[in-house]
Amino acid sequence: MNVAVIGASQTKFGELWDKSLIDLLAESELAAIRDANIEPFQIDIIFTGNMCAGPLLGQLNLSSIASEILGLSVPSNSTEGSCASGALALRAGIMAIESGMANIVLVNGVEKMTDEATEQVTTALMGAASTEQELFCGATFPALNALIARAYMHKFNLTREQLAMVSVKNHYNGSLNPLAHLQRKISIDQVINAPMVAAPLTLLDCAPISDGAASLVLCNQKIAKQCNKEMVSIIGSGQASGPLSLHNRDTLYSLKTTTIAAQQAYKQAGIIPQDIHVAEIHNAFSILEIITLEDLGICEQGTAGKITEEGWTALDGKIPISPSGGLKANGHPVGATGVFQVVEIYNQLLGRCNNRQVKNAKIGLTHAMGGIGATIAVNIFKKN
Amino acid sequence: MNVAVIGASQTKFGELWDKSLIDLLAESELAAIRDANIEPFQIDIIFTGNMCAGPLLGQLNLSSIASEILGLSVPSNSTEGSCASGALALRAGIMAIESGMANIVLVNGVEKMTDEATEQVTTALMGAASTEQELFCGATFPALNALIARAYMHKFNLTREQLAMVSVKNHYNGSLNPLAHLQRKISIDQVINAPMVAAPLTLLDCAPISDGAASLVLCNQKIAKQCNKEMVSIIGSGQASGPLSLHNRDTLYSLKTTTIAAQQAYKQAGIIPQDIHVAEIHNAFSILEIITLEDLGICEQGTAGKITEEGWTALDGKIPISPSGGLKANGHPVGATGVFQVVEIYNQLLGRCNNRQVKNAKIGLTHAMGGIGATIAVNIFKKN
Repeated sequence: MNVAVIGASQTKFGELWDKSLIDLLAESELAAIRDANIEPFQIDIIFTGNMCAGPLLGQLNLSSIASEILGLSVPSNSTEGSCASGALALRAGIMAIESGMANIVLVNGVEKMTDEATEQVTTALMGAASTEQELFCGATFPALNALIARAYMHKFNLTREQLAMVSVKNHYNGSLNPLAHLQRKISIDQVINAPMVAAPLTLLDCAPISDGAASLVLCNQKIAKQCNKEMVSIIGSGQASGPLSLHNRDTLYSLKTTTIAAQQAYKQAGIIPQDIHVAEIHNAFSILEIITLEDLGICEQGTAGKITEEGWTALDGKIPISPSGGLKANGHPVGATGVFQVVEIYNQLLGRCNNRQVKNAKIGLTHAMGGIGATIAVNIFKKN
Repeated sequence: MNVAVIGASQTKFGELWDKSLIDLLAESELAAIRDANIEPFQIDIIFTGNMCAGPLLGQLNLSSIASEILGLSVPSNSTEGSCASGALALRAGIMAIESGMANIVLVNGVEKMTDEATEQVTTALMGAASTEQELFCGATFPALNALIARAYMHKFNLTREQLAMVSVKNHYNGSLNPLAHLQRKISIDQVINAPMVAAPLTLLDCAPISDGAASLVLCNQKIAKQCNKEMVSIIGSGQASGPLSLHNRDTLYSLKTTTIAAQQAYKQAGIIPQDIHVAEIHNAFSILEIITLEDLGICEQGTAGKITEEGWTALDGKIPISPSGGLKANGHPVGATGVFQVVEIYNQLLGRCNNRQVKNAKIGLTHAMGGIGATIAVNIFKKN
């Protein structure tokens, strides 16, 4: 592929009462442009991932806001694939460059969630699942993920402690990330004894509701090389779609779409899962990290709890997972999530992550999920 | 460009009480696939334009619904640019083919608006404008367009009768379109004396609130030729973004974004406005057709009322505008609108429009608008 990342930014994530959706988008866009050392007028096309601004804020047409912030009249488009919206903006950006219709593309993800009550946010998030088959029956996202957790724990003897270790690891990473929503370490006991959300998942198995934005500057690789830009190449990209509601699935133990998208990306990149040095994966609920490790081919089905317990996924482990703290601790401003994952991998590959820097990271992977595996995008990055 | 349309469909538009969002999307997808004479498994990527399913129905992630309907696991993405959402799906489809990442692309636009009360729909539609600077001040879309109409009428001596003739012409065309939402002819007197919505715009100056879906099958042109498909080539495509709220504009008499996008498209197509034989333009309010005729370069500024009065834009005129009935009479299911416009031009260029067929139409144009010119896409089509 012909596409490189030449700049990246993430705003502080959290409950940002003093910042609006537009404030966050503007801050993120300008920081990425600065990081790429380009001028706004060099941007040919903008893509912005967002999920909830329509249902929560009543604000649509973010595409035109994204260009107006920069004083540009260039084509601008918004993408939506629920929690994978930001990753779909990245995919659109890749296509724009590969098509020759753009040389430099700005990719954003943004979400402002804390202006509404949690109940309304929970309902809005169910837009990522089937309203007719799940929301109207009273299901919430934690409840649907709890079903999966129960089924998986029963089938593969995953222990409650192993599941909790996912959150403990992600919170540890978040404690090293000054932009993370949650920057405190937690213990296995704290996870298990936290308030129950949907058994077996407690509050500390679930990602927080976050505000935040993230941006990337993509560039045609040949042009980036001519300009002598520090860059990270996108060497593989895959995307797959699957059934929206859980009852239409063949299995609850695995999300087939992750495997399909990953295989496309591995094939294009010419690598195997064991070649990955660092990954940011969709861990909105602890159980999703367990299942995703297996679906990505990082370990055999049924063994993700064991490798988590053995420390493979820790910062100094065999394959560090979500060094940013992931959705659990860095936060989950849903439309921004698919973009912040790339920001983290970009920074990791360039060695800019200070205390949470993964050693010798040369190939990184991002895994974004919309719905519970209904939309999956996997991208692979390599340091030039 | 390398992209052709090889199949197209539009559902019946209207207040479709017996059909859900998913029903409409499924009907439209399957009809376009039949029209293209392909099998679903031949589709590489899907793009779906939608604006209001989030705020009105709580259903997001339409991308995965669009693929699930067809039993596919291919990449699927939703695009949003308010009333231009469908046109942005088309633009994304063009990029996917031009990038080589897809040979056959399914493009959808869908909207289900009549499940909610009109007041809620009016509020949801204001998501296309600035919530902070316009909605919160009490503005509605008819009110914003009325401001423009007043300013334009004062500046260029457009008469109330000339403005009404836009709706009379569009309703006449709609009366010949069996899929149109509104299929009855109206008179100038009826327009002027209809209930006032926002002076000077009456009910008959405004597009209806419609349910509906439309789909296109795009194909790499070389492959389409090899398969001996009947097709229409996309020969030019332009897109521009502008300020969201009216108070940030240089002028109310013109939408500069239309001119920027059109010039890109004309240049790529190697034509001038006078080469266009038929066009579908964004006429959600009568005044927008007047202004757009000028911004597209079809006539000089200040003369669109006169050429409308002289019958240029009628079915048998110099440049028939919105033979489908346009947004005013065919209807305005907002996410579907940018796609139905292409469906009509495709059918016109292939001579499939029966009573409303434009004679000798070989080059056609579509003009889609999100917000009041905040997002504009112009595409040009040619019969092969």
